[in-house]
Amino acid sequence: MIKTVGIVGANGYTGSELIRLLAFHPNIKLSFLYSRSNSGTKISDLYPDLTTVCDMVLANKPSQVDILFLCLPHKESQNWLSQNVVSDDTLVVDLGNDFRLDGKFADRNFIYGLPEINKKNLLGVKSIANPGCFATAIQLALLPLAEKGLLNEIFTTGITGSTGAGQSLQSTTHFTWRNDNISAYKTLTHQHVDEVLQQLNSFNDKEVSLNFVPWRGDFTRGIFTSSTVKSDLKLSDLERLYREFYEEAVFVKVSERAIDLKQVVNTNRCVIHIEKNENVVVIHSAIDNLLKGASGQAVQNMNLAMGWEERTGLNLKPIGF
Amino acid sequence: MIKTVGIVGANGYTGSELIRLLAFHPNIKLSFLYSRSNSGTKISDLYPDLTTVCDMVLANKPSQVDILFLCLPHKESQNWLSQNVVSDDTLVVDLGNDFRLDGKFADRNFIYGLPEINKKNLLGVKSIANPGCFATAIQLALLPLAEKGLLNEIFTTGITGSTGAGQSLQSTTHFTWRNDNISAYKTLTHQHVDEVLQQLNSFNDKEVSLNFVPWRGDFTRGIFTSSTVKSDLKLSDLERLYREFYEEAVFVKVSERAIDLKQVVNTNRCVIHIEKNENVVVIHSAIDNLLKGASGQAVQNMNLAMGWEERTGLNLKPIGF
Amino acid sequence: MIKTVGIVGANGYTGSELIRLLAFHPNIKLSFLYSRSNSGTKISDLYPDLTTVCDMVLANKPSQVDILFLCLPHKESQNWLSQNVVSDDTLVVDLGNDFRLDGKFADRNFIYGLPEINKKNLLGVKSIANPGCFATAIQLALLPLAEKGLLNEIFTTGITGSTGAGQSLQSTTHFTWRNDNISAYKTLTHQHVDEVLQQLNSFNDKEVSLNFVPWRGDFTRGIFTSSTVKSDLKLSDLERLYREFYEEAVFVKVSERAIDLKQVVNTNRCVIHIEKNENVVVIHSAIDNLLKGASGQAVQNMNLAMGWEERTGLNLKPIGF
Amino acid sequence: MIKTVGIVGANGYTGSELIRLLAFHPNIKLSFLYSRSNSGTKISDLYPDLTTVCDMVLANKPSQVDILFLCLPHKESQNWLSQNVVSDDTLVVDLGNDFRLDGKFADRNFIYGLPEINKKNLLGVKSIANPGCFATAIQLALLPLAEKGLLNEIFTTGITGSTGAGQSLQSTTHFTWRNDNISAYKTLTHQHVDEVLQQLNSFNDKEVSLNFVPWRGDFTRGIFTSSTVKSDLKLSDLERLYREFYEEAVFVKVSERAIDLKQVVNTNRCVIHIEKNENVVVIHSAIDNLLKGASGQAVQNMNLAMGWEERTGLNLKPIGF
Repeated sequence: MIKTVGIVGANGYTGSELIRLLAFHPNIKLSFLYSRSNSGTKISDLYPDLTTVCDMVLANKPSQVDILFLCLPHKESQNWLSQNVVSDDTLVVDLGNDFRLDGKFADRNFIYGLPEINKKNLLGVKSIANPGCFATAIQLALLPLAEKGLLNEIFTTGITGSTGAGQSLQSTTHFTWRNDNISAYKTLTHQHVDEVLQQLNSFNDKEVSLNFVPWRGDFTRGIFTSSTVKSDLKLSDLERLYREFYEEAVFVKVSERAIDLKQVVNTNRCVIHIEKNENVVVIHSAIDNLLKGASGQAVQNMNLAMGWEERTGLNLKPIGF
Repeated sequence: MIKTVGIVGANGYTGSELIRLLAFHPNIKLSFLYSRSNSGTKISDLYPDLTTVCDMVLANKPSQVDILFLCLPHKESQNWLSQNVVSDDTLVVDLGNDFRLDGKFADRNFIYGLPEINKKNLLGVKSIANPGCFATAIQLALLPLAEKGLLNEIFTTGITGSTGAGQSLQSTTHFTWRNDNISAYKTLTHQHVDEVLQQLNSFNDKEVSLNFVPWRGDFTRGIFTSSTVKSDLKLSDLERLYREFYEEAVFVKVSERAIDLKQVVNTNRCVIHIEKNENVVVIHSAIDNLLKGASGQAVQNMNLAMGWEERTGLNLKPIGF
Repeated sequence: MIKTVGIVGANGYTGSELIRLLAFHPNIKLSFLYSRSNSGTKISDLYPDLTTVCDMVLANKPSQVDILFLCLPHKESQNWLSQNVVSDDTLVVDLGNDFRLDGKFADRNFIYGLPEINKKNLLGVKSIANPGCFATAIQLALLPLAEKGLLNEIFTTGITGSTGAGQSLQSTTHFTWRNDNISAYKTLTHQHVDEVLQQLNSFNDKEVSLNFVPWRGDFTRGIFTSSTVKSDLKLSDLERLYREFYEEAVFVKVSERAIDLKQVVNTNRCVIHIEKNENVVVIHSAIDNLLKGASGQAVQNMNLAMGWEERTGLNLKPIGF
Repeated sequence: MIKTVGIVGANGYTGSELIRLLAFHPNIKLSFLYSRSNSGTKISDLYPDLTTVCDMVLANKPSQVDILFLCLPHKESQNWLSQNVVSDDTLVVDLGNDFRLDGKFADRNFIYGLPEINKKNLLGVKSIANPGCFATAIQLALLPLAEKGLLNEIFTTGITGSTGAGQSLQSTTHFTWRNDNISAYKTLTHQHVDEVLQQLNSFNDKEVSLNFVPWRGDFTRGIFTSSTVKSDLKLSDLERLYREFYEEAVFVKVSERAIDLKQVVNTNRCVIHIEKNENVVVIHSAIDNLLKGASGQAVQNMNLAMGWEERTGLNLKPIGF
């Protein structure tokens, strides 16, 4: 039976990306798109690539639906849920960071929606906290080591496309500044560090520390990370460890060959590659920040919660070039 | 019933893009991928984005299939058909330019596969000449005028992404040269001019001339064209003319608002926008050169020839950003 | 003797580019940088590449100088000159479009500062209207034909980098939108058309028309144009005509080989290339929009007005790659 | 008195960049440009941006000069010096890595040409080993700590433009692949690691280790690095330490504000920024890989060896945007 879906904050990047995915999802029907600032506007006037794909008008208030996606600025999901009535039967998927560290809110208990660790816990749940983009890329690179208690101190550099900064006009998203440019931001203090550590420490019995240097990249989509750790395991053992850990992960691929960012752009996949020199291990990972790092993972979580095949609506043609 | 498909020249850009599309097409099964130069190699080793999507090994010879795509360098399709046995029942879609101007070859008669003019003629045919990329973008911008006999002299500038130049390494596809660069090539002599004129003149009773200046762009995917012509029709009449002409064209959108290239990247769509000042008309059009300009249109043609819904396998998530 | 220089509107793109040039000019000394909106700020805090090159503080009012550059939004130069006292002895170079079409203003008579046509008239003048960026690129491509009365109707497409749109944050200068994108704007109605026609018609005895389609490019610096005209002259005669016309133009190079945009980026040069097929001629030209198209040409004009060697301060290392 | 200069390997990226710099250097005259593979060709036919700047023909053999630059692939400088006669009075600046780790060769003793540590030793020398590009960026970020013996283990990520890979056509320099892409290469094994450690260990009394992850960036010019180390010093003390260390370094700027790559593109400068959280310190640095990372530093070394002002010929207009 077709389920009804509503999107709150449909006018942003992650909201519109959800529409691109859900427009062709066979099990759902979009009931409403809500935006406080753009109500009355056709979504395809804001995002012309959606013309004929989805020409719905942004509503000025939500209605009851089976599945609700919250695509709001960080900290506004709590406000929204407080001020609006949502049925207990409605599956709520929050793409913000309000419920990632502490999932309890009123009668709901948000589950951290990283399917690669929580797949079995997602069936039937009604509240999902969708992970952050950098948090997804870094965790997927490190979880197999965490599960075995092999992590100590981690040194990670990650680079993100401009869509990670959202649609507001900022000096650091001005084309003239950003084209051909690289810069660091939130050095050692990025908000995803706590999110990553909470998950890693739930596995790893020793305390893990994460020194994370995020960079702004001169491209629109994607995240590439390299994490350096120490390990005495042989490379082949590490690779086997990763393969086993991700055996049932349909969107994660551990590659024996070098990876690059464009292998995953416009897909819901994560690719991982491990290298080793003496006792130093570097794990590279790449995702599309708007898909596996946000809206694609949200659909994956919805599929698992609803009991649908995990890949439904996510068989996306890669950009390739 | 599932039909079998073979791709000759599967290791090139248009060949691999076909695989990206056909891997998820519900009515077909890939039987073989053929490449003279890379036989024995997994296609996903050449194009890692295909890993787990399609891990077939490139064959060293073709086999009999229901549908055959030829993705060969220009002029090599004829050689290939001469040297290999292809059943008369096999649908052959040629992505090269061997049969666009003259479709007769042995017992086959290739139909020009631009669905926007030939949709009704494609059902059941066994031989289709898939149009060129620039030829598609320019024709779609001008066909409504041609049909009414309103064309005289046309001045077109078009810009193409680097994938239009293929995968061979050339000085003009070196990143260091091409990044942030613009240049003209084949000024007034591009091979698609004859292809466009043959189609336009088949409609237009006056002789049409086309002055075409192609540019190389500093992006990978897409074609954007602007064609300047003279007309006494009012803008609103022109827009109505275009809308009527494309009423049944599921992949063409005549936009009243300004268009931009990224609206169509990673889709099979064409967007068109018309502007007018005094008696001068400019028609802009945009396509993804590898999709509506090549492999996507080839799938569209296959769908029409086989009697399948035209959009099957072509509901693609746009890149958006 | 060292001359004093002031820049009004020093905080914009053309203003800051002037500083980059003048910081190393041997004949001048920067006296003041003026900006209404940023007074009190160090220019190197706005443009960190200027650190140690020029760390002057933006002044809140101008002072008397030998040479004054106006880098204001269009139409504000008139206001500024009305509201401030500028000595009759001061050379004023206006980079806006206030005085390009009509140079008379109070007691001043602005000369159109395109050195390739006005070099001999510039020595000793006190008022110079610096040409527009597209206007420079298009005129340099067509002036040799205009001088011989060979122009009729012109069809030009030009593409510009994002710096042409200035430093304000706009949806069309958002990196996420502009990267890998192409779009048209001000089709047939760009403000530089009148400027070009006024100059071309002052040479050409027949009335000239210009159909100009400007495009936004996905790069920061540069303009590339292709102009299509009709001519019965042989290509070799056209090339000789251009060479002779530009014999004394130190910054214009007529190339027998294909040109590309990056040949001129970060230089004050213009490169031109001519191609012909039957009676159709295409002339390509390329400049750096901030240099030959704005601040570089302003310095060139200053040099000529002051009687200095034309290239002083303009021997710039090209970006090359 | 004007000195004569020869360039061996003038047809490569670093060779042509040297020409761009030396063409306007007031103290030298280019005597010959040598290239084995392109002798007889005008350098401006290979690099059209050099037209009218330098139209010399590539020679098929060198001649005696006062100053000789070797711009050869790594390991070929030794061969070249063995097979050609170079006067003992000739200053030889080698841009390859042949003499960086061991400067003794025949009667010559190459000095490591990083002016920020060796400025006083360079006057009058006849043999200079020009540092590597990544090696320059990383050392400048770490030398002040090394001098005080404060370094232990270093974790560095660096990203380089495509010019770092040279002019040969490779799959990783194909525009279609590299545009919008990020990838890692030579993880933990880059050839510059030994070069950096040799210098750092010559200062630092404790053994230093360097875990270096190099990335390929989707831009042409520039290197950006972030190095993570441990320190108990306060941020303000670190900043003072760096300022004092670089007090006489005319091309190094320690910035209190965030830096970005384009601040240094097309200049010979290095910018450095330090951040700290608890006891973890991150030092960012940025250079233009072809200038401070290669040809610009070579000119700086020449200036110092010849007793000329260090900045002669290096007052370059930044790209800015």
